[in-house]
Amino acid sequence: MNSFAVTQRTQIKRLPQRGNYDRALIHQILDEGLICHLGFAVNGQPFVIPTAYGRVDDLLYIHGSPASRMLRTLKQGVEVCVTVTLLDGLVLARSAFHHSMNYRSVVVFGQAVVVEEAAEKLAALKAFTEHIIPGRWSEVRPVTAQEVAGTIVLALPLTEASAKVRTGPPSDDDADYELPIWAGELPLRLTSLSPVPDPLLSSEIQLPPSVRQYDR
Amino acid sequence: MNSFAVTQRTQIKRLPQRGNYDRALIHQILDEGLICHLGFAVNGQPFVIPTAYGRVDDLLYIHGSPASRMLRTLKQGVEVCVTVTLLDGLVLARSAFHHSMNYRSVVVFGQAVVVEEAAEKLAALKAFTEHIIPGRWSEVRPVTAQEVAGTIVLALPLTEASAKVRTGPPSDDDADYELPIWAGELPLRLTSLSPVPDPLLSSEIQLPPSVRQYDR
Repeated sequence: MNSFAVTQRTQIKRLPQRGNYDRALIHQILDEGLICHLGFAVNGQPFVIPTAYGRVDDLLYIHGSPASRMLRTLKQGVEVCVTVTLLDGLVLARSAFHHSMNYRSVVVFGQAVVVEEAAEKLAALKAFTEHIIPGRWSEVRPVTAQEVAGTIVLALPLTEASAKVRTGPPSDDDADYELPIWAGELPLRLTSLSPVPDPLLSSEIQLPPSVRQYDR
Repeated sequence: MNSFAVTQRTQIKRLPQRGNYDRALIHQILDEGLICHLGFAVNGQPFVIPTAYGRVDDLLYIHGSPASRMLRTLKQGVEVCVTVTLLDGLVLARSAFHHSMNYRSVVVFGQAVVVEEAAEKLAALKAFTEHIIPGRWSEVRPVTAQEVAGTIVLALPLTEASAKVRTGPPSDDDADYELPIWAGELPLRLTSLSPVPDPLLSSEIQLPPSVRQYDR
């Protein structure tokens, strides 16, 4: 299937022309993002926690310490909503009213399940690292069995997922197009600056390919 | 008061050394962010929606169309959790296990109330615009009474708010510091690229100060 089925939860009601259920687009947005905002409710009280994630096929993995309240709650099978948002630009209109932002976002609904099997856990841990910085997994000290055991990994199936995308120039009121006011887009990008070596790093150790080639 | 009181909801339980309740820091993070992730629950089902916001003193404003499902739900006084996250860098350790991110985040809990009064609504609309791009409000066509009336503005009081901050190099296992593996931080910044004029813009209209001077 190249698209996710539209469900009651994923149907885009507000500005439906921005909605998209294309699997490749949804994967691409998830792969470009670095953090998700994970929402869950406890007795009606919502919590929204920023956290790292990884993706393997149609599984979104999150992880953390057994001491994490979030993970202990999710392990119980509560409903979650995971949102990833990429901000692509500011949309400057001729009126304040029509100012907007260009963005690509994905929302995933479902229940996360604990990954128990060591091989899948290891693959998920690799996915986290490679998601943040491709090529890094093979540069670092191999993960130990103790580290795998000491990490909780949860998998959220990508079954109910939708994207929402805005691109392009502002949409002004017809009469405003004649005003002598600048309008357009100010594109935004998440860029990396010069790497800062750990103060405890030997000066003989060179920058690795993963850092030299980093480009999001 | 220079700090927010710690409540049951805002107490940082995981890695408490990263927790911070300083009002100036919380304001600074909110002012630097461009979008928040707003969470609420309907019959236990969480929703996490990315949205713009503005701040005036200790009020966080959000806004939207009367057609927005999110705003119609929030108007009923449901509990919300608003999270703003600034990603400052990738933290590259000598082991995959200790990879991390440097970030500054704020979480606000509470109930949003509808802003009815026209003067406060207008001030909030100005705050949205100036939040996205300082100086823009005075450059654009003035807002009309109809636009003010046609926008729902909600105010979330900043009474239960906390920040969480990670900075600095990785924390590796003692034995790993001797390994010949590069470690450090790759700083990340949200930067603006060259402005893209609206295709419908007259070529005689110059870039305004708000765009020329934009720096986040």
